[in-house]
Amino acid sequence: MKHFLAEAGGDTLPWNEQVQHVTQALRATAVERDERGGTPKVERDRLRDSGLLMLSVPLELGGLGASWCQTLDVVRGFARVDSSVAHLFGFHHLLLATTQLFAQPAQWQPWIEQTRAQRWFWGNALNPLDKSTRARASGDGFVFSGRKSFCSGASDSDVLLASALDAQDRLLIAVVPTQRAGITVLGDWDNMGQRQTGSGSVLFDDVRVKVSELLLDPGPLSTPFACLRPLLAQLILANIYLGLGEGALAEAKAFTLQQGRPWLFSPASAANEDPYVLTNYGDFWLALEGARSLLDSAATAFDQAWLRGASLDERERGRVAIAVAAAKVASTRASLEVAHRMFEVTGARATTAALRLDRYWRNLRVHTLHDPLDYKVRELGEWALNDRWPKPSFYS
Amino acid sequence: MKHFLAEAGGDTLPWNEQVQHVTQALRATAVERDERGGTPKVERDRLRDSGLLMLSVPLELGGLGASWCQTLDVVRGFARVDSSVAHLFGFHHLLLATTQLFAQPAQWQPWIEQTRAQRWFWGNALNPLDKSTRARASGDGFVFSGRKSFCSGASDSDVLLASALDAQDRLLIAVVPTQRAGITVLGDWDNMGQRQTGSGSVLFDDVRVKVSELLLDPGPLSTPFACLRPLLAQLILANIYLGLGEGALAEAKAFTLQQGRPWLFSPASAANEDPYVLTNYGDFWLALEGARSLLDSAATAFDQAWLRGASLDERERGRVAIAVAAAKVASTRASLEVAHRMFEVTGARATTAALRLDRYWRNLRVHTLHDPLDYKVRELGEWALNDRWPKPSFYS
Amino acid sequence: MKHFLAEAGGDTLPWNEQVQHVTQALRATAVERDERGGTPKVERDRLRDSGLLMLSVPLELGGLGASWCQTLDVVRGFARVDSSVAHLFGFHHLLLATTQLFAQPAQWQPWIEQTRAQRWFWGNALNPLDKSTRARASGDGFVFSGRKSFCSGASDSDVLLASALDAQDRLLIAVVPTQRAGITVLGDWDNMGQRQTGSGSVLFDDVRVKVSELLLDPGPLSTPFACLRPLLAQLILANIYLGLGEGALAEAKAFTLQQGRPWLFSPASAANEDPYVLTNYGDFWLALEGARSLLDSAATAFDQAWLRGASLDERERGRVAIAVAAAKVASTRASLEVAHRMFEVTGARATTAALRLDRYWRNLRVHTLHDPLDYKVRELGEWALNDRWPKPSFYS
Amino acid sequence: MKHFLAEAGGDTLPWNEQVQHVTQALRATAVERDERGGTPKVERDRLRDSGLLMLSVPLELGGLGASWCQTLDVVRGFARVDSSVAHLFGFHHLLLATTQLFAQPAQWQPWIEQTRAQRWFWGNALNPLDKSTRARASGDGFVFSGRKSFCSGASDSDVLLASALDAQDRLLIAVVPTQRAGITVLGDWDNMGQRQTGSGSVLFDDVRVKVSELLLDPGPLSTPFACLRPLLAQLILANIYLGLGEGALAEAKAFTLQQGRPWLFSPASAANEDPYVLTNYGDFWLALEGARSLLDSAATAFDQAWLRGASLDERERGRVAIAVAAAKVASTRASLEVAHRMFEVTGARATTAALRLDRYWRNLRVHTLHDPLDYKVRELGEWALNDRWPKPSFYS
Repeated sequence: MKHFLAEAGGDTLPWNEQVQHVTQALRATAVERDERGGTPKVERDRLRDSGLLMLSVPLELGGLGASWCQTLDVVRGFARVDSSVAHLFGFHHLLLATTQLFAQPAQWQPWIEQTRAQRWFWGNALNPLDKSTRARASGDGFVFSGRKSFCSGASDSDVLLASALDAQDRLLIAVVPTQRAGITVLGDWDNMGQRQTGSGSVLFDDVRVKVSELLLDPGPLSTPFACLRPLLAQLILANIYLGLGEGALAEAKAFTLQQGRPWLFSPASAANEDPYVLTNYGDFWLALEGARSLLDSAATAFDQAWLRGASLDERERGRVAIAVAAAKVASTRASLEVAHRMFEVTGARATTAALRLDRYWRNLRVHTLHDPLDYKVRELGEWALNDRWPKPSFYS
Repeated sequence: MKHFLAEAGGDTLPWNEQVQHVTQALRATAVERDERGGTPKVERDRLRDSGLLMLSVPLELGGLGASWCQTLDVVRGFARVDSSVAHLFGFHHLLLATTQLFAQPAQWQPWIEQTRAQRWFWGNALNPLDKSTRARASGDGFVFSGRKSFCSGASDSDVLLASALDAQDRLLIAVVPTQRAGITVLGDWDNMGQRQTGSGSVLFDDVRVKVSELLLDPGPLSTPFACLRPLLAQLILANIYLGLGEGALAEAKAFTLQQGRPWLFSPASAANEDPYVLTNYGDFWLALEGARSLLDSAATAFDQAWLRGASLDERERGRVAIAVAAAKVASTRASLEVAHRMFEVTGARATTAALRLDRYWRNLRVHTLHDPLDYKVRELGEWALNDRWPKPSFYS
Repeated sequence: MKHFLAEAGGDTLPWNEQVQHVTQALRATAVERDERGGTPKVERDRLRDSGLLMLSVPLELGGLGASWCQTLDVVRGFARVDSSVAHLFGFHHLLLATTQLFAQPAQWQPWIEQTRAQRWFWGNALNPLDKSTRARASGDGFVFSGRKSFCSGASDSDVLLASALDAQDRLLIAVVPTQRAGITVLGDWDNMGQRQTGSGSVLFDDVRVKVSELLLDPGPLSTPFACLRPLLAQLILANIYLGLGEGALAEAKAFTLQQGRPWLFSPASAANEDPYVLTNYGDFWLALEGARSLLDSAATAFDQAWLRGASLDERERGRVAIAVAAAKVASTRASLEVAHRMFEVTGARATTAALRLDRYWRNLRVHTLHDPLDYKVRELGEWALNDRWPKPSFYS
Repeated sequence: MKHFLAEAGGDTLPWNEQVQHVTQALRATAVERDERGGTPKVERDRLRDSGLLMLSVPLELGGLGASWCQTLDVVRGFARVDSSVAHLFGFHHLLLATTQLFAQPAQWQPWIEQTRAQRWFWGNALNPLDKSTRARASGDGFVFSGRKSFCSGASDSDVLLASALDAQDRLLIAVVPTQRAGITVLGDWDNMGQRQTGSGSVLFDDVRVKVSELLLDPGPLSTPFACLRPLLAQLILANIYLGLGEGALAEAKAFTLQQGRPWLFSPASAANEDPYVLTNYGDFWLALEGARSLLDSAATAFDQAWLRGASLDERERGRVAIAVAAAKVASTRASLEVAHRMFEVTGARATTAALRLDRYWRNLRVHTLHDPLDYKVRELGEWALNDRWPKPSFYS
């Protein structure tokens, strides 16, 4: 628990300067890049240069040693100004964590080492809902074939976490270089939001995968500790959502203070004294504050579980799962509400295309569809009414 | 009251074929034109050719003789597929009505006649909130100078309703040809929604205005009947909003039925049988149905008041004002809710830029800022608690 | 469609004086009787004396000839001051209608005639969810045995509509005198709301029922016309709910105007000028107005369907069912909201037990549990998404 | 921050056994006492006997040494089963704290000592909004005269915190024995909720007050530290509200699990598997969990500020004030929502008067009117938009 009376601290964290540097650069071009879409190559390279791709890696492995709370704070901060890059950055760390959760150190440590040495940016080609990529045994390994959708961050990635189903419909997850023969990143993502996440398709055309590249021990979702993976994914999503809500509120506030005009019938002489403007801001802020409180608690719980390692049991994992689910739902609702309604406290002139303030809503609207809210609320209901932990899956 | 048990009627209205023709043409290009912005020249000319610019004009004056209920139905129908053109079309009729409400027949009948003969498309340069355009007396008339913002439909218009404040801060409203010397339509509208309404600026650089072009008898908001003007404006807005909500629901429905997939944990085998998808649709539809019911009642009341003419009294006007305000608030809320949440029943694939389904939200978000909802709700509260009619203004 | 500009009419309806008389008497003692619970014997007798128990009966059968719209208006008006008696009164007319929907005139006309001549007050012992009452064939008739719950209005009734399941689980509905041997009305209803509806249990201890007392031709829910029965039941409920909401708003308004005090930090010098009090009233009123609009449309549609008689088809019945379901959901939500939140505009002193203003919430809370809202919204979703009419049942 | 993975701890706190004892006794009779109203004399004496009236007092002064977090936890726990007694208990500690915040140790330590030795139960007669009690100088002291309303806990109290305005409208606050000549506790509280708080009137008929009984140094709201008083009051309220919401959810859960029946059209075979029942529980639980998170943070912040003592500055006090305001609004809304809607997941049989489950709503509805929510949200808006701390007052 941070000391409440103190100002927000953390100024002395060793990565702060790099984070500020990247954030400012992202902010400067976010509007233009939202319009353009495609791959944020310059920004990805800036992240490579910044060293922040090693943020969540322990000091002893050459990383910056940030806790997950700290890593998620950086994700959230990036999302305030650019939720596409925040997504790419957060998922990079999720993929690094996935190897640590689904495999043994002897297997994953060399990948971490390469990530440090080669400044690898990891990309996603694991989509549990997309069953069209198949793995067939071949020699001493497998061959992956098929087309996979929603592969965020595959474009301009150095290495991919890729999944396929084998003949027995078992999920195989592999770590393969993006440049491997047979892999084509299509760059076909053009959606109304999260426009620079490159969440398009990757083609696997007889891609050879060695057994040593498969995460088999203990394997996906095989133990309570391995089952932390979806919780980290959900925490990253929730922090991106909350960051978007915080960014939207900050933009609205700046606009109201600088350009707001009281309505014709307002008793106030300035927009920021209008009784309804004030209660709208109060509601927006409170919604975000409630989500923030739940999200910080959930991240703290996740860190505790992460440190527990293989000794984590189902009950402990269940408690974290509930905390994460609560934070996810609250963040989704709060941020959508702010991004949806922020214009009611700025007035019509804030809708100019030059500001592209609709991008907060568009980014949230797209990203919050990752998995449906109603079923997440149902998970909370199973807990509240039936004392049942969420059943582990790639979404819970 | 239409007979409830019958199917929706009206198929035999004489303008239906033209309305269908225009609607289909609008639908075919709405996505592309939302991207492009600017002036929908082809569509404006198609409206000129269709005869529908005379829709609300009485038969005896060469019009199609539609009631306001019928005219607003056409506006709402256009808005389902293209709310920019619906706005231009609705405001054209509002401006025609304005001359009838603020002036005498001897003055406005020739304008109507010209509208028929020359197929005039009227544009707006009346913005009561923008006080920067001034009128100074000059010879037997006035000279207007200044810059006016939010002039929807001025671009490609044939005639403008333009306002200025004279030396005594009295609001003068004039009917002037758009081509008159000194008038420049800037075409500087580039906003996140209502992108083809051309709601940009018009420059008045020493524009000469004759007294015979001013709406002085009885003048703006001078009588209960003249005070119907803002109510018609609000009704047009509300019908555009509701049309947008109806259009959004129709798109969502088509997507769910054709491309929806049930969530991983859904008990249903098809998206359209999922328990939460169904209640979401139920909520969306009910919100729109409630607004529709209020809006149809308000339009009927408006028609009754319109027919009352100069004998309309304050009490009668007040009753219509309340009905309109109720319908306006309900339409705003219902349609915003549907356009905001429609993606929750379609899933992530509906966010592809190719469909531009976010345009319903963007159009609503921009247009519903015309005047603030909180103050409209306050009007309802003054009625509910204090039995006070809304005070006539350009917004109530 | 009533003429909008006119004041609320209907003052000349022949039953108005009696309605006013009963309403005033109900209002005078409602608080005390809410506390007391039990059977409102005096009020039931006043209704017997008033002639209003014949309100919905056609003139040619000796009734007052009110349409269902008119009958429901009276129910709603009673509910504004006393929702228990409104319930008893509404259900009396529902039971009369049930005989007309489920049986032939030759069978039901004598019952109507008796109702007129003997001033019968009908009570309910039909509860489709309660399967514990059984009918066994015996001689030329049946014998009913079992205990039935939620029998509103059975206490002090003259005749009961009673149901039982026969050996084949077929629902048998009978019209029997409450005094018949074997029938015991327990008077065991003591709930937090609707306290004088006497919705307790009725015991059937080998009650003989003649075949001529059974509604067999066409029988329950057997034809589209017979399937109007649940729609009338739902309309009565919705009108009671709306009446409760209207009554709550009226009480709040009177309190605010007469005793309200502006909050310490309010910019207003009187409670009724406070900006937040005003928008709260605006929201309350609008919610009720939207429900009212839907409910009036649904009642009109119901009257049209009723007049169609046996020629009513499934499609027509479906349209009415959707209108009724929409009005039911909207009335439930609007009135619950007003009764729940009314205290926020009155302040703490309105919570004195002397006023018992919580009874609006208690009455609504109890009565709106008749059938669950979520499943009613789901019906609307089936219509909105899948174009399916509600499947006829005793609840839809 | 408690360790998230651990079970709820605190079982070893030295006062736990007494707290459990009192809680069980309160639960056993809460329904009956809600009906009865009046003064809970037996329960007040049990608190006297329990030693818990010294809970918040430091060990070195003979108290139990609980932090405010711990004290508020006990208040919240009591409120789950009996919010009236929770109110009396919480306010007792608030009044003890008030003397510490508004006076010097030399003055208040003897009162604390008497509280320990005589087992004083403190009662409230400080109502800043009620200006009718006046203090006139008389000899070496003052004489208080007037009638004060909303004096929670005055009945059966040993000592009162009483306020009056002097000739200069300065607020004087005195500590006086309830038995002093001229004081009459009227016992006239009979409201729809919080029925055993005895929040009625106290008459002051020329009551002599010595200067040594007045809290003058530093006096009411005179320093940032003194201004913690309203924050503690708001925290106590918020904990009572949250406890009520938690109690309501627990009752609903027990009912659904033990007596719930799935609706006729539910796909589930048991109520606790119904899809809508589950999401309703999820929503209820999440609302409470969000409030709980904010409330725990606010209490922690308060404890930190309390320990700062006279060195607390305005900025630090401001931060706590915002945390408290956020928690207050969230608790109010969450608990009201649960108490209002709990019946939707239990069904109609839970409305039996025997259970009196409406008491959660009645208690919340009455108590949450302490000060209006809209103005508390406005405070949050002032912070969110204008970076202004709440202005200290008895309500903020």
